[in-house]
Amino acid sequence: MFGIWGHDKAAEITYYGLHAMQHRGQDGAGIVINNGENLKLHKDVGLVNDVFKRVNFADFPGYAAIGHVRNATQDDGIFDNVQPLVFRSLSSSTAIAHNGRIMNAEKIRRNLEEAGSIFQTTSDTEVLAHLMKKMNGKNTTEEAIIAGLKQLVGAYAFLILTEDKMYVALDPRGIRPLSLGRLGDAYVVASETCAFSIIGATFEREVMPGELLTISNEGLKSTRFLLREPRKLCAMEYVYFSRPDSDLNLVNVHTSRKRMGIELAREHPVYDADVVTGVPDSSISAAIGYAEQCGLPYEMGVIKNRYIGRTFIQPSQELRDQGVKMKLSPVRGVVEGKSVVMIDDSIVRGTTSRRIVRLLKEAGAKEVHVRISSPRIENPCLYGIDMLTKKELIAANHTNEEIKDIIEADSVEFLSIEGTEKAIVKDKTINQGICAACMTGNYPVLENDQRKEFYRKY
Amino acid sequence: MFGIWGHDKAAEITYYGLHAMQHRGQDGAGIVINNGENLKLHKDVGLVNDVFKRVNFADFPGYAAIGHVRNATQDDGIFDNVQPLVFRSLSSSTAIAHNGRIMNAEKIRRNLEEAGSIFQTTSDTEVLAHLMKKMNGKNTTEEAIIAGLKQLVGAYAFLILTEDKMYVALDPRGIRPLSLGRLGDAYVVASETCAFSIIGATFEREVMPGELLTISNEGLKSTRFLLREPRKLCAMEYVYFSRPDSDLNLVNVHTSRKRMGIELAREHPVYDADVVTGVPDSSISAAIGYAEQCGLPYEMGVIKNRYIGRTFIQPSQELRDQGVKMKLSPVRGVVEGKSVVMIDDSIVRGTTSRRIVRLLKEAGAKEVHVRISSPRIENPCLYGIDMLTKKELIAANHTNEEIKDIIEADSVEFLSIEGTEKAIVKDKTINQGICAACMTGNYPVLENDQRKEFYRKY
Amino acid sequence: MFGIWGHDKAAEITYYGLHAMQHRGQDGAGIVINNGENLKLHKDVGLVNDVFKRVNFADFPGYAAIGHVRNATQDDGIFDNVQPLVFRSLSSSTAIAHNGRIMNAEKIRRNLEEAGSIFQTTSDTEVLAHLMKKMNGKNTTEEAIIAGLKQLVGAYAFLILTEDKMYVALDPRGIRPLSLGRLGDAYVVASETCAFSIIGATFEREVMPGELLTISNEGLKSTRFLLREPRKLCAMEYVYFSRPDSDLNLVNVHTSRKRMGIELAREHPVYDADVVTGVPDSSISAAIGYAEQCGLPYEMGVIKNRYIGRTFIQPSQELRDQGVKMKLSPVRGVVEGKSVVMIDDSIVRGTTSRRIVRLLKEAGAKEVHVRISSPRIENPCLYGIDMLTKKELIAANHTNEEIKDIIEADSVEFLSIEGTEKAIVKDKTINQGICAACMTGNYPVLENDQRKEFYRKY
Amino acid sequence: MFGIWGHDKAAEITYYGLHAMQHRGQDGAGIVINNGENLKLHKDVGLVNDVFKRVNFADFPGYAAIGHVRNATQDDGIFDNVQPLVFRSLSSSTAIAHNGRIMNAEKIRRNLEEAGSIFQTTSDTEVLAHLMKKMNGKNTTEEAIIAGLKQLVGAYAFLILTEDKMYVALDPRGIRPLSLGRLGDAYVVASETCAFSIIGATFEREVMPGELLTISNEGLKSTRFLLREPRKLCAMEYVYFSRPDSDLNLVNVHTSRKRMGIELAREHPVYDADVVTGVPDSSISAAIGYAEQCGLPYEMGVIKNRYIGRTFIQPSQELRDQGVKMKLSPVRGVVEGKSVVMIDDSIVRGTTSRRIVRLLKEAGAKEVHVRISSPRIENPCLYGIDMLTKKELIAANHTNEEIKDIIEADSVEFLSIEGTEKAIVKDKTINQGICAACMTGNYPVLENDQRKEFYRKY
Repeated sequence: MFGIWGHDKAAEITYYGLHAMQHRGQDGAGIVINNGENLKLHKDVGLVNDVFKRVNFADFPGYAAIGHVRNATQDDGIFDNVQPLVFRSLSSSTAIAHNGRIMNAEKIRRNLEEAGSIFQTTSDTEVLAHLMKKMNGKNTTEEAIIAGLKQLVGAYAFLILTEDKMYVALDPRGIRPLSLGRLGDAYVVASETCAFSIIGATFEREVMPGELLTISNEGLKSTRFLLREPRKLCAMEYVYFSRPDSDLNLVNVHTSRKRMGIELAREHPVYDADVVTGVPDSSISAAIGYAEQCGLPYEMGVIKNRYIGRTFIQPSQELRDQGVKMKLSPVRGVVEGKSVVMIDDSIVRGTTSRRIVRLLKEAGAKEVHVRISSPRIENPCLYGIDMLTKKELIAANHTNEEIKDIIEADSVEFLSIEGTEKAIVKDKTINQGICAACMTGNYPVLENDQRKEFYRKY
Repeated sequence: MFGIWGHDKAAEITYYGLHAMQHRGQDGAGIVINNGENLKLHKDVGLVNDVFKRVNFADFPGYAAIGHVRNATQDDGIFDNVQPLVFRSLSSSTAIAHNGRIMNAEKIRRNLEEAGSIFQTTSDTEVLAHLMKKMNGKNTTEEAIIAGLKQLVGAYAFLILTEDKMYVALDPRGIRPLSLGRLGDAYVVASETCAFSIIGATFEREVMPGELLTISNEGLKSTRFLLREPRKLCAMEYVYFSRPDSDLNLVNVHTSRKRMGIELAREHPVYDADVVTGVPDSSISAAIGYAEQCGLPYEMGVIKNRYIGRTFIQPSQELRDQGVKMKLSPVRGVVEGKSVVMIDDSIVRGTTSRRIVRLLKEAGAKEVHVRISSPRIENPCLYGIDMLTKKELIAANHTNEEIKDIIEADSVEFLSIEGTEKAIVKDKTINQGICAACMTGNYPVLENDQRKEFYRKY
Repeated sequence: MFGIWGHDKAAEITYYGLHAMQHRGQDGAGIVINNGENLKLHKDVGLVNDVFKRVNFADFPGYAAIGHVRNATQDDGIFDNVQPLVFRSLSSSTAIAHNGRIMNAEKIRRNLEEAGSIFQTTSDTEVLAHLMKKMNGKNTTEEAIIAGLKQLVGAYAFLILTEDKMYVALDPRGIRPLSLGRLGDAYVVASETCAFSIIGATFEREVMPGELLTISNEGLKSTRFLLREPRKLCAMEYVYFSRPDSDLNLVNVHTSRKRMGIELAREHPVYDADVVTGVPDSSISAAIGYAEQCGLPYEMGVIKNRYIGRTFIQPSQELRDQGVKMKLSPVRGVVEGKSVVMIDDSIVRGTTSRRIVRLLKEAGAKEVHVRISSPRIENPCLYGIDMLTKKELIAANHTNEEIKDIIEADSVEFLSIEGTEKAIVKDKTINQGICAACMTGNYPVLENDQRKEFYRKY
Repeated sequence: MFGIWGHDKAAEITYYGLHAMQHRGQDGAGIVINNGENLKLHKDVGLVNDVFKRVNFADFPGYAAIGHVRNATQDDGIFDNVQPLVFRSLSSSTAIAHNGRIMNAEKIRRNLEEAGSIFQTTSDTEVLAHLMKKMNGKNTTEEAIIAGLKQLVGAYAFLILTEDKMYVALDPRGIRPLSLGRLGDAYVVASETCAFSIIGATFEREVMPGELLTISNEGLKSTRFLLREPRKLCAMEYVYFSRPDSDLNLVNVHTSRKRMGIELAREHPVYDADVVTGVPDSSISAAIGYAEQCGLPYEMGVIKNRYIGRTFIQPSQELRDQGVKMKLSPVRGVVEGKSVVMIDDSIVRGTTSRRIVRLLKEAGAKEVHVRISSPRIENPCLYGIDMLTKKELIAANHTNEEIKDIIEADSVEFLSIEGTEKAIVKDKTINQGICAACMTGNYPVLENDQRKEFYRKY
């Protein structure tokens, strides 16, 4: 999610900003540009490059823009749900981009539909537009947004663009990441700071939990729309979701990962191993940390094929059975006859880990000790990272010993919660804390109703 | 370059083999399949995935196939030159794929055209087809190939497919890599062994310098068509061109690179640096070796954007001047305020190195010490790696001190030739030697005429 | 516009039905299929063939469907406005296709938006969906549709598809064409009967003015939702819009056109001409009628290029000035040295007529007498045929004599209103009358407000 | 086939010229442009519009060009065979476009291949390039072309473009059409004069049988390369192949067709019929002539769907059995209860005629009398119109009475050879005669060898 206000190449800058955050969503992309008169939308399913390959940005002038990359958590991969969403009335237009999950969206929607409203999408993002519209008679847009946000329960970061302002809002716990920067005179907002670095912008500060920023030609105005609670930024952003060059809540992601590797080595060393290797790309930092802490050589035991793309033809089961590999291949020259420590950033279903253990053993590894640089994931995420249920999570249903057997490893150990916090949280007074609900079951945001619904569902 | 004889999914296997070697050529790809009756070609400009995305391999049955990925060394990016080339006459067809460079191709072509032959491409590969055609009255195809090869001067690996046989040939010095493997009963041939690993094949042996293999339903036959000389496999294949998981001439590429990093640390240590970093992806192995040898932490100081593809919209000069980055971005959290050792695998023109030094300094690096894990490249390659002239090579025209100033680094040092050989050549009796002509000027293959022409041109 | 209920190849049949009516709208096409559980939409801008070229109808099973081809009367050529429109709520879905124009749509929309509704399109069709939604608490869908329709003023034909029924409605004057047919046990509905003939269906009857048909698995039910007034089917459907093989309101279009030509010959003969020619394709029938009545030879004086399509590269002005032609070319061998009667079906702006007169004269025609097989068009259409204003209509601003000079003809005459009626209306008790508002200014449907607005606007 | 010399928009003009002649070949298109330095080719399979839709003619500057549309007579629809063919050597380039058929091409090719030449295509056109290449040591290009042409037997029209000249050649009988025109100072050449009319060029004269034109910046030079024999222009060009607005050998095609209809009415009238109708588009002229001569009304009994294109989805057999129609549909309002004379331009296999007779009868026609405005086609064409064998020609195997039964008509009659000649040949001293070999079996060009081979094959 990326926004900019006050730059005459707003659409292009947004394109590069989204491009830097492509890893956050590969199912769709869109940009809405404010050209001073109205809002112009270009969006489609697919990667940023593909969506914009035929766009000539000269035909797309404007001064402000918001953009979004979509990660389809459910199989609703339809065009309509690709964001930003734009809502046009006879008098004005509003564009909305959203990252996170509104937990009471369905309930709000049901009420609105009964009163005669028609929804355009199945996206939880759309409820905010309708809540705003219901207010818009006698209120300013800002008042309508605040009234709408107060009815939402969940984890969210919103960018809202109208003909004359850009609004930026973060949920009261700050579960999703959102940073503010400057590019010359322009304001920029992004889910990750790697977007600032790619466009040459400077980091200004984090958007605060419960804060609404109103950005216009008069400058920036900050409003606290809900009482701020201690920040609980999603731990999985550090573990695997964000880019290593981003700083989240003032902590560099690569550095936090390397520290997780170091903590992991302290907690669960393998002294008699020959080499340490990591699963590319997100586990490399932790693997190097682990190797340094243990004094073992770090080697490339597994190579990722860089050319797997949308058009790659998947091998048939028959060919896979014959040994045709796809995304990852082992480096025989490195692992043959060796005792290998394989660092992975997390285990969700366990299927990927098993595939890699098998690859290494087929390539001649004598032993494979799996070390995971995050805790056991035993609970579903309610805040938008994915939509897995408890049943699908291997650690929710198995001990370490059982997991070891399932993934065919010689041993398996996980980093502790304490180790994870130590690696991520520099200083409680500065970056406060993390949301580790998927590891601990301690959900920072949950309505009574949701709680019941949640236990019924998962 | 990939070939297979004796597998009922020949086209698909070739697709995966080429895919594993995509890094060897990104300008075009093609596969010729032998379906028992005739040769069927599918080729186009572009990446393997793009070229074959609409191909249904079920419509492309066959028992043998050869494939090629094209690296357009010159700006001749035309469809016709994409390989394999197929030559059809009323009585038979021949497909040819070639890796390397035929130094006397133009001279041969001129003679043939004067005698009335019409060429279809501007590729040096085509001369072999015409030399073979001129022989084909009273000779076997094998005799025609040998007669043709004997007229060629250069570095070459050829795959030739006819309706009833597959031929494999390597130049007398073995400058280009070429390996033989088995996949069940089938024979496979590939430029790099990573192709074997991706398809589940086993490595059998290197094709020998000056050897012609004839593979058919009767099995494999080896002929020595020219006196074998000590092998001189191209050093740049180890330095940056090949994939780390390939074994070239029995030596693993990642391992040789890590050893180059270790040798480099021995020759040119930087004792008071804070971190070691490498330019992704080809310099990572060396950087880790360097860091381990020096006892310094290895960190990700530079990140490569994985989503740059054909459809990426390049930023305008105006945006680049404003700081918009493309392929690489520095990790501020890692380099800010630090003294950084930056390992790169080679310096050719020096422009990339300068860009990275600048990125690191902009991100706050206090000092940047550049260490190159290969020797100074002072001479053009005549054997197909690229077509740069002496004028374009920074090391051919500048001392280390000058290079340091040009790339804006705090110091620059190169690995020695001896260190390079030590890292690559395990044992002279086994893998003999390397072609380091671009570093030493000592060209293993050169006709008298070529020699003159060469000095006139470069 | 096409609908079918009760056929297991509903989507395919709809495709062929739309294809037969491609001439009614070339800017977009869509089909909504009812697969027994929900509504599935496929639509896009472009011709029917292009929109559906990648669709495999086997993936699109269903039992009922509605489809639409879009004629963008205004430059709003956006994807969203392509029909059918689909409205989904948590409990049900509704698809709507519409042909015609709702004159009070903007007023209704403004009221709904003030009450908090959000519209998805700029199409006048969408108001019916919102009017229905507002009713849907305590009413059946049928009651909601009737309540909605009663609020609309204009000329309209609607197809509405829900999970369990298909609804068909025609405005109280029956200005737009709409016929009912049978295909085996299935019911089919189409704007023109040529769609029936292409799919092998039989014509059953016209949909009546002010009639709502409800079609479901229980069969067909007819409701009169507004008092029926004498039918006034749009005359321009006969003049040029419909296909010659369609029967509109029980009269064949080709036959009515030929009769217009015959009437025109009676009213305005040219006795000393050499040949009669017509502008392809819509004027050919009239030209043949004219020639037969006058006893003059009919010849192809002008040829239409059949291969002009979306991808045709328009000649630059420079090339057009040099004589490069596009769509039409004269047949010199037919017109050189001749006195030509050129029959055209209508004159709107006059630019096309002038172009053809010029073509004929450049090809050597001695004289060109233009005869128009419809009356002078002096008033804008308010019912959906086009959106031209009075200012743009040549006959609203010029006498025949002036038009003759503007289009550079030797004489110009028009068919009278009486002649037109005589050619179209077989029998007042059967097919009643026509809407000739654009010719006479006598608008059959007009609110007081509209009247004022209309005179302000046009 | 189109060529131009001396115009600064040569490529664009050629595009429009080819577009006008799209009906001559719909399987591929190409243009070669001479930009003063070298020849640049753009070609592909598909229609002219599709092949050039992404071409920006500004990137394609030049002063001379040749273009071709390909009619794949055999199922060899491969890219390589699309013309013009371009042959490049180290010293020069030659482009060739060809219309017709070289009967001894295979024999020549066999000899050349045995001497070591490699062919690029399976096209008979390529032999001329090789014959020229073999000569090019000591001769001018013109001498090489003449020497090559003298070895060819068949019907041919050639356009040859080199860096400095354009050559135009026609076979000694002039079986294929070829006209010369002027566009300002530029020379233009086209298979049909409709191409001149579309680009605003004037007709100059026919290219003569056995004539070679050499066009360059020095102007036009004419050489007789073979003794001219009386011209025998292909009758089928008049019957159905050419466009009605073209003049072939000084006779307008529409006019000749109308005269064929008139002659047909004289030879085979149907006095008690109600209406005359024609199969669109090529039979309309004849049908009008027939109707005028008989004094019967001409009506549109059959409509052709204008939107059938490459992307049209063909109905399945199941749907066709249910009555779904494709290309043609009958006009019930015109034919129901009537006795219909259906004029078709020719009967080849008889399948199309039967389909139309059935359509008319299903639409209620009482009687269908088929009248064919050309003679019975009893012999295969050897000169490039199509590749049917005697076995496939209905008239080669059946009497009129039998044909009547096969196509389910009430009567069938054909125009006589004499009537055909009378309609086409104005004046033996001016346009001489026609090739009616397919009707009479009297082949104007045939080698002894060919004769034997011919009787063996067909």
